[in-house]
Amino acid sequence: MRAALMYGAGDVRVENVPAPTIQEPTDAIVRIVAGCICGSDLWPYASMPDTDEGARMGHEFVGVIEELGSEVTGMAIGDFVIAPFVASDGTCDFCQEGLQTSCRHGAHWGGQDDGGQGEFARVPQASGTLVVVPSGFDEELIPSLLSLSDVMSTGYHAAKKAHIEPGQTVAVIGDGAVGLSAVISARLMGASRIILMGRHRARTDLGREFGATDVVAERGQEGITRVRDLTGGDGTHVVLEAVGLKSAIEMAIGVVRDGGVISRVGAPQFSDVPLGSPEFMRNITLTGGVAPARAYIDELLPLVLDRSIDPGKVFDRTVGMDDVPAGYQAMADREALKVLVRP
Amino acid sequence: MRAALMYGAGDVRVENVPAPTIQEPTDAIVRIVAGCICGSDLWPYASMPDTDEGARMGHEFVGVIEELGSEVTGMAIGDFVIAPFVASDGTCDFCQEGLQTSCRHGAHWGGQDDGGQGEFARVPQASGTLVVVPSGFDEELIPSLLSLSDVMSTGYHAAKKAHIEPGQTVAVIGDGAVGLSAVISARLMGASRIILMGRHRARTDLGREFGATDVVAERGQEGITRVRDLTGGDGTHVVLEAVGLKSAIEMAIGVVRDGGVISRVGAPQFSDVPLGSPEFMRNITLTGGVAPARAYIDELLPLVLDRSIDPGKVFDRTVGMDDVPAGYQAMADREALKVLVRP
Repeated sequence: MRAALMYGAGDVRVENVPAPTIQEPTDAIVRIVAGCICGSDLWPYASMPDTDEGARMGHEFVGVIEELGSEVTGMAIGDFVIAPFVASDGTCDFCQEGLQTSCRHGAHWGGQDDGGQGEFARVPQASGTLVVVPSGFDEELIPSLLSLSDVMSTGYHAAKKAHIEPGQTVAVIGDGAVGLSAVISARLMGASRIILMGRHRARTDLGREFGATDVVAERGQEGITRVRDLTGGDGTHVVLEAVGLKSAIEMAIGVVRDGGVISRVGAPQFSDVPLGSPEFMRNITLTGGVAPARAYIDELLPLVLDRSIDPGKVFDRTVGMDDVPAGYQAMADREALKVLVRP
Repeated sequence: MRAALMYGAGDVRVENVPAPTIQEPTDAIVRIVAGCICGSDLWPYASMPDTDEGARMGHEFVGVIEELGSEVTGMAIGDFVIAPFVASDGTCDFCQEGLQTSCRHGAHWGGQDDGGQGEFARVPQASGTLVVVPSGFDEELIPSLLSLSDVMSTGYHAAKKAHIEPGQTVAVIGDGAVGLSAVISARLMGASRIILMGRHRARTDLGREFGATDVVAERGQEGITRVRDLTGGDGTHVVLEAVGLKSAIEMAIGVVRDGGVISRVGAPQFSDVPLGSPEFMRNITLTGGVAPARAYIDELLPLVLDRSIDPGKVFDRTVGMDDVPAGYQAMADREALKVLVRP
C-alpha cells in the first residue's frame, strides 16, 4: 500500500510500504477513506533532522473496517469509523475518567507504526479507540467527521478544560484549524463574546462564521491592549491558546482577566511558562494539554450528523496520495489552512 | 500606640506610631486583640534591603471595633471582627465573584499603612472587609478565629481551586501553617488520602492530627518517588503547594497524577514554571494564587465556632508587642511554627 513518510525537514515522500495485518486480537485494520495533515505535523516539517528510515505520518483518519481481531467488540467489518489521534483501551481508569491520552495501554500513530496518511492502518485497541458512525450519513459530512479525530475535539478540549460558563468572554489565540474549532466550542458552551486573535483574513472570516464576535489581528502588547480595550480593560474570563509558541502563552497571560483561565492546546514549543508572582497575585489558572479526542466524539458526533456544527470547513484543500508532499508545503506556506487527504 | 516595623533583613523594631483615625467614611478603627507573624513575612525578614523609614508589618488580625466611619454598615462599635489579609469593598464584580484580592477598591495592610502587628489599625472598606463574630464565643477560640484572616483561608483556597472531590488523593507540600491548613481543607472536602510532605516532626504530627494519612519527609526526586510508591506509581490527583519555592513546584509536577491539578498558595519566589511539553502531554493544571480569604470566612467561621476544625493549633507561641522581634527570629529559626501576637 502507499503511505507518506517524513525523512527530514521539508522532506515528505510517498512510498510503498507493507500493508498492515492483524497482530493482536484487539486490532482492527481500517481502509482509510480520509486522512489529513495536522498543524502539529508542521513542527517536524520545519525542523526534523534527516533520517534514513523515515517516519510514517498522520494521526487523524476516518475509514471503513476491513478486518477485525478476535477480541474486538462493538463494531463490524464494513463499519465507517472515526479514529482519534491516540489509541486507547477504553477500560483503564484513565479512559474511564476521559483521559484516554494517558491510557495504560495506549498507542500513537505514525513513526514505525501506521499513520493516518496512507491507504490502510492497523488500529490497536480497536474496541476502545474507534467510534462507529451510524450508517446512512451524507458523504459531504466526511470532512467534519474527520475533524473529530483531532482538531475539533482538541478545540473542544480547550473549552471544556476551561469550564466556559454561559455569558463569559473568551479569547481564542490562533486562527488555525484548532483555534477555529475552539471558536465553535466556545460558542457551544455559551460564551457571550468570542475574540479571535489571528491575522489571516480568510481564516478569521471563517472564525466569524463559526461564532467569533470580534477579530484582533494585532499581536504581542498591541494585541493585549486591543483585547483589553474590547473588555473594559479587564481582559477575558477565558483564553483558549491554540498556537503553542511562548509568545502566544505570554499574550494569553496578558489578555486573561484576574481569576481567569488559560486553556492551552497548542503543542508547546517551550519549556517554561512565566507564572510567577504577578500571575499568582491575579489568580491565573493554566490548564489544557493534549486532547483526549476519544472522550468527546460521542458528544460531538450527533452535532456533526445533525449539522449543528460544521467543523469540516477548516479543510480548504483536498489532495490524493501523490500530492501529500505538496499539501505539507501548502500548509507550511500558509496557502492552505488544512489539507484533507483522500488516499 | 505601639507597632512593629521592619527596617531591613533581620531588623524588626517595636516603636510608638500615631494612633489611627477615621480618614474615609468607609473606614473603621479596630483595637487589635490578636495579630500574628506570617510565613510570608519571613521573605522580607530574610532579604529586605535596609531602609530609613521602616515598613509597618502584619496582615492578619482580629479585634474589637472602636470607631466607625459614617458609611459603614453591618457592624457596631464593640463587635469582635476578623480582618482578612486584604481589604475589599464587597460590592464590585470581583468581590461578588469571590475574588476579593482583585477588588477594584482593595487595599493591603502594612507598609506606610497600619499593619496587624500593633495595637490598633484603620480598616479601609470596613463594610466589605470585616467579618463580625457572633458574641459569646469562647476566648480560647481566638487563635482559630485569627487563622481565618489568612492561613486557614489560604489552605482552603488551595483546596477549593483544586476542586478536590471526595475520594481523591491529595499531596500537600509544606508543613508550615498554610500547609497544615491545607490538610484540614483537603479533609473537609473529602480527600481519601492526604500525603503531607514535610520534615519537621512536630508539624507533621499536627498534620496527622489534622487529617494527613501519610507523611513524606524526603524532598526532590526522593520525595517524588515516595509519593508515587504510595499511590501505585501514579501520583496524587491533587497537589496543594504551600511553600513557594521553585523546588516545591518541581516536586508538585513530579508527584501529580496525569490529568491532575497543582494548586499553589505559596508566594512564588520564582518567575517561571516548567510546564512545557511533558506536562502538556500529561494534562497537568496549575491553579491557585493569593487567597481571597474574605470569600471563605463565612463558610469556615461556623466550623471554628462549633469546633469542627481547630486551625488555631498552628500557633505554638504567643508574644506581647515587646517580643515581636524575637517572634520573627523564632519563626526564621524554625523554632516556632507560627507566632501569635497579643498587643
